[in-house]
Amino acid sequence: MTKRVIFKPYDLAVEVAEGENLLRVALQAGVHINASCGGEGVCGKCRILLEEGQLDSLRPALISDEEWSLGYRQACQSRVVSDVVLRIPPESLLDRRTLTRRRGGIELRPSPIDLEALKAEHLYNPAFTKRFVKLNPPTQSDNINDLTRLEQGLARQHAVKRLTMDFFLLRKLGRVMREQNYQVTATLDFSRRRSPSPHLINVEPGDTTQRHFAATVDIGTTTVWVQLLDLARGEILGNAADYNAQMSYGDDVITRIMYSQKEQGLQKLQRSVVATINQVLHRLLKHHKLPVEEISHLTVAGNTTMTHLFYGIDPKYIRLSPYTPTAGTFPSVRARDLGLEVPNHVFVYSVSSVSSYVGGDIVSGVLASGIYKDPKLTLFIDIGTNGEIVIGNQTWLACAACSAGPAFEGGGIKFGMRAASGAIEDVIINPETFEPTLITIDMVKPKGIAGSGLINLIAAMMEADMITPNGKLREDLNTPRIRRGDYGLEYVLVYAPDTQSGEDLTLSESDIDNLMRAKGAMFAGYLTLLENVGLRLQDLEQVILAGAFGNFINLENAIAIGLLPDLPRERFHFVGNASLQGATLLAFSRDLLAEERRVADMMTNFELSETPGFMNQYIAALFLPHTQMEYFPTVTDRLRAAKE
Amino acid sequence: MTKRVIFKPYDLAVEVAEGENLLRVALQAGVHINASCGGEGVCGKCRILLEEGQLDSLRPALISDEEWSLGYRQACQSRVVSDVVLRIPPESLLDRRTLTRRRGGIELRPSPIDLEALKAEHLYNPAFTKRFVKLNPPTQSDNINDLTRLEQGLARQHAVKRLTMDFFLLRKLGRVMREQNYQVTATLDFSRRRSPSPHLINVEPGDTTQRHFAATVDIGTTTVWVQLLDLARGEILGNAADYNAQMSYGDDVITRIMYSQKEQGLQKLQRSVVATINQVLHRLLKHHKLPVEEISHLTVAGNTTMTHLFYGIDPKYIRLSPYTPTAGTFPSVRARDLGLEVPNHVFVYSVSSVSSYVGGDIVSGVLASGIYKDPKLTLFIDIGTNGEIVIGNQTWLACAACSAGPAFEGGGIKFGMRAASGAIEDVIINPETFEPTLITIDMVKPKGIAGSGLINLIAAMMEADMITPNGKLREDLNTPRIRRGDYGLEYVLVYAPDTQSGEDLTLSESDIDNLMRAKGAMFAGYLTLLENVGLRLQDLEQVILAGAFGNFINLENAIAIGLLPDLPRERFHFVGNASLQGATLLAFSRDLLAEERRVADMMTNFELSETPGFMNQYIAALFLPHTQMEYFPTVTDRLRAAKE
Repeated sequence: MTKRVIFKPYDLAVEVAEGENLLRVALQAGVHINASCGGEGVCGKCRILLEEGQLDSLRPALISDEEWSLGYRQACQSRVVSDVVLRIPPESLLDRRTLTRRRGGIELRPSPIDLEALKAEHLYNPAFTKRFVKLNPPTQSDNINDLTRLEQGLARQHAVKRLTMDFFLLRKLGRVMREQNYQVTATLDFSRRRSPSPHLINVEPGDTTQRHFAATVDIGTTTVWVQLLDLARGEILGNAADYNAQMSYGDDVITRIMYSQKEQGLQKLQRSVVATINQVLHRLLKHHKLPVEEISHLTVAGNTTMTHLFYGIDPKYIRLSPYTPTAGTFPSVRARDLGLEVPNHVFVYSVSSVSSYVGGDIVSGVLASGIYKDPKLTLFIDIGTNGEIVIGNQTWLACAACSAGPAFEGGGIKFGMRAASGAIEDVIINPETFEPTLITIDMVKPKGIAGSGLINLIAAMMEADMITPNGKLREDLNTPRIRRGDYGLEYVLVYAPDTQSGEDLTLSESDIDNLMRAKGAMFAGYLTLLENVGLRLQDLEQVILAGAFGNFINLENAIAIGLLPDLPRERFHFVGNASLQGATLLAFSRDLLAEERRVADMMTNFELSETPGFMNQYIAALFLPHTQMEYFPTVTDRLRAAKE
Repeated sequence: MTKRVIFKPYDLAVEVAEGENLLRVALQAGVHINASCGGEGVCGKCRILLEEGQLDSLRPALISDEEWSLGYRQACQSRVVSDVVLRIPPESLLDRRTLTRRRGGIELRPSPIDLEALKAEHLYNPAFTKRFVKLNPPTQSDNINDLTRLEQGLARQHAVKRLTMDFFLLRKLGRVMREQNYQVTATLDFSRRRSPSPHLINVEPGDTTQRHFAATVDIGTTTVWVQLLDLARGEILGNAADYNAQMSYGDDVITRIMYSQKEQGLQKLQRSVVATINQVLHRLLKHHKLPVEEISHLTVAGNTTMTHLFYGIDPKYIRLSPYTPTAGTFPSVRARDLGLEVPNHVFVYSVSSVSSYVGGDIVSGVLASGIYKDPKLTLFIDIGTNGEIVIGNQTWLACAACSAGPAFEGGGIKFGMRAASGAIEDVIINPETFEPTLITIDMVKPKGIAGSGLINLIAAMMEADMITPNGKLREDLNTPRIRRGDYGLEYVLVYAPDTQSGEDLTLSESDIDNLMRAKGAMFAGYLTLLENVGLRLQDLEQVILAGAFGNFINLENAIAIGLLPDLPRERFHFVGNASLQGATLLAFSRDLLAEERRVADMMTNFELSETPGFMNQYIAALFLPHTQMEYFPTVTDRLRAAKE
């Protein structure tokens, strides 16, 4: 259910989801209300006046009885429950001009997997399937062993031939066969690479064909996601996530690889990520009241380093030239052999990787986004410390990883942080007063700035003309918020009383510099890959953004700072955690599984550091948005309009 | 080197191996010297007089200085080191008639595997092979992952296609590839059932193709044998054995199955046999100075119950009608998953079984003896608690198990015991005095009677006319050795002073009865199987005896008591531990491995208890040698001759 929110005096109307937080609504609409506490409700600055309709509001101490009865509310403490008309109090009022700068453009939110399309294309055919067989109980004259009886039943009733099988099911076969008088359900695995035969992995008493579950796992360097699937119904039951417990051994893949070289380091890293998966999986199973015995397999996607560490394979050579991983495609392995708390019949499959820095998460994303079968020339981007880029279409795919550095994940930025509670995720700046309005994750006091918040902040500062194209702050502005700090000039985003740490939360020129390096590496990557295949930016018919890059990415701002190319906005799509989605598609579709290795093989890897032209492109991109402004026509317009 | 031993006054000459014990020589020659202490040297009865040549003799206290200088020696304390002429002292002298009854006929001793024949037939091609590959080290422009590099090398240099592989080798692949600059040896497994692809199980640095070893295991209910193989050279390096540690939970398969149903019983049995295998294998490896890492796989043969217990599979249904085991053919399993102390790359393969009581040991024996490809109609026998019988030729094979009972393994016989130290293994009886001459295993004081000893004892008693055809002892003989005991009449084989226990060692009519049941079940089994395929005893062109039935079986005596059919002696062959030999042949020959399942399928199982005619045959066989003496023409002659 959507509700209409009208902001007076601008008569700006927006449609929002019922229950949406009003501060978030205002930020999205570009309405300045000067909130500086991130949404915690303590600064009291985000006042609005409710004129019509209902809000579900908490009553903070900063609003008096009289004000409350007049309709004053704090936006951050209010949720939209009906159509409302709100008035921005004069202290927040700005000239109309501000409002012409609507934000966002297309708002990119993760699109769920289109299961209906998969089914419509007849691709819904999980590689793990159950077969119910009704066997004749043995007699004196027919006392062949249980396993042969089962094989004969599968051959006769389901035309299953040349079956191979896992040893461990034999330990329960005798009991299972007799429990419901030789009526059993066999779980068959048709996924084994290079094996034409189905592999019998489990047997259960009676007919359990209507209960068949699996889990997929996205092992991110930062976050581990698990998705629970109902294979009998073709449904996603739910997701759960937690931080990768390896985080305590280093923030990024390079520090993890370094840690793996210490005594017992590899073992500790392996056990950590497995512990995280166990915890998230069992939490999810408990929530859905599913016994773990009903899971038939796990499909895992992760970058090359995460995959090596998960399997307990030394990742040392990934970071040593010439950057050769141990394997790209991994044979299936019994999940228990890796320490996973699942029954013996559960095997683990992982998505193939292409190279040391283009891993299974990217291949999975390419599969999920469908670009490998799309005639449109597509740019696929996963923004992160190692930003991965794929360009191509149904005929060819080129890929590369950019050492963007950790700026988008909070690294190298003094107050940068991961997208966690207290991280500023959105900011707008009043171009008259240079006062910020901001919101944090969980709407608590600000603790730092998330990657998405950083992009939005830089874009807002560009728009407010506080920053020069080469990333320097303007010293001549009439605001105490710009001051000289330890690392050159800095902008005070939140003053000490409103921060969690009790110190001023700032953004320095050094921070801006690091962000420019990060976005510059990505942009230089697109151009270099395109150049190598003889194409230009304008040729891109589609741009797909993947990755858990905050909850959403503000497309206009990402273009404004030069992170994304300035192309018609309708060409952009945000697919969210494409790695997890791809793994889920593989669990749902045997046909897609058969494509997986082919797609990985199809992806030609470019080592950017070895590719001619990359360094020049990189240096050219160390500008806001770029030294060659012709790449960014709409940004030029936007900045010009802002100055008017 | 053989030496000639002449016994005076008979002028009986025999050729013996240098170093042979003189008591054993005398027993084999049928020369009575009244030894009753089993060869320990304490009874002093086995005196002989050395007339010419040299003996290597210990000087027991029972021989005085004067006697020693005259040439008196104790046979049990003497070894033959030159040609000798010996005189049997008068106290041992018998009439010449005794000596006409020469013993043994063909002496059956285990024949080793004929590896030269295997090689001559071009069947020497182990399913596990090593391939050396010399790869190009990676460069910036060729930095494909290590596994793909290895696969490409195997494909190009050895035409190995569609390789599958074991996960665990990836954990060392990176290191191994670099250790000798990308020169590695891959171990490939071509044995996987129903898999057309070779399976990569191991990778080692450098060229190790000249070092490739494997082990085969025969899991007997009583004894576990391990054989160490050099696959690179096609040689058997050695054997070692020990009692199956499961013995402490029961002597035979039925008591083991019963124990497996107790709390933790199955786990204890599984761990026990694995502990035995670990112990024997590592002892053998140590002896041959081989690191366990150089073993590529294990091939295991055992009866159906032993195989189930080894794998940790509940054997309950084996002893419940209609006697269905869980599996006949077992998928390969990582040896470590069973508790075996070997590296991760070692998998276990077992020989297929036919039914609950015709197991992998018999299939292995059929393979070893080659009867599945022999045009001759063959009877294959493995004598034991469950005596297994196979009849057939290259076209068809029928098999059955007889519940012979444990008499041949010492069970149900008051002083019966396994073929262990102190067990009487051979006996002859003086037909005049009814005094026995006997020898024990390890030549220590007698403790009990082994199965082979029992057969020889009964035959000797038949020949001395001490026993009636229905198994009763003659009460009217002039000897105190036949007396009335707790279980009817009994014969005192060794008096208390000469036994380990210090009590008289006897054989009662009840013991004879149990032996008759055991041999009767076997004989009824042959006849029933033959009858069911429309054949007669005389049609058998070959009889193959398998099993660790003592160190040797005395063919004449086994025929005399009715355990073996009375056929021309040259038709008999003793192949020893055919189960172990078959497992070794499978390790040596990929072609034979491909035959293995076919041979198991070819063997039609008969449940004797359900087969018409068996019970009548069984009752008819409860005689010495049989109610129908026409089955035993030479025995009739022998007994008649003995009486003359």
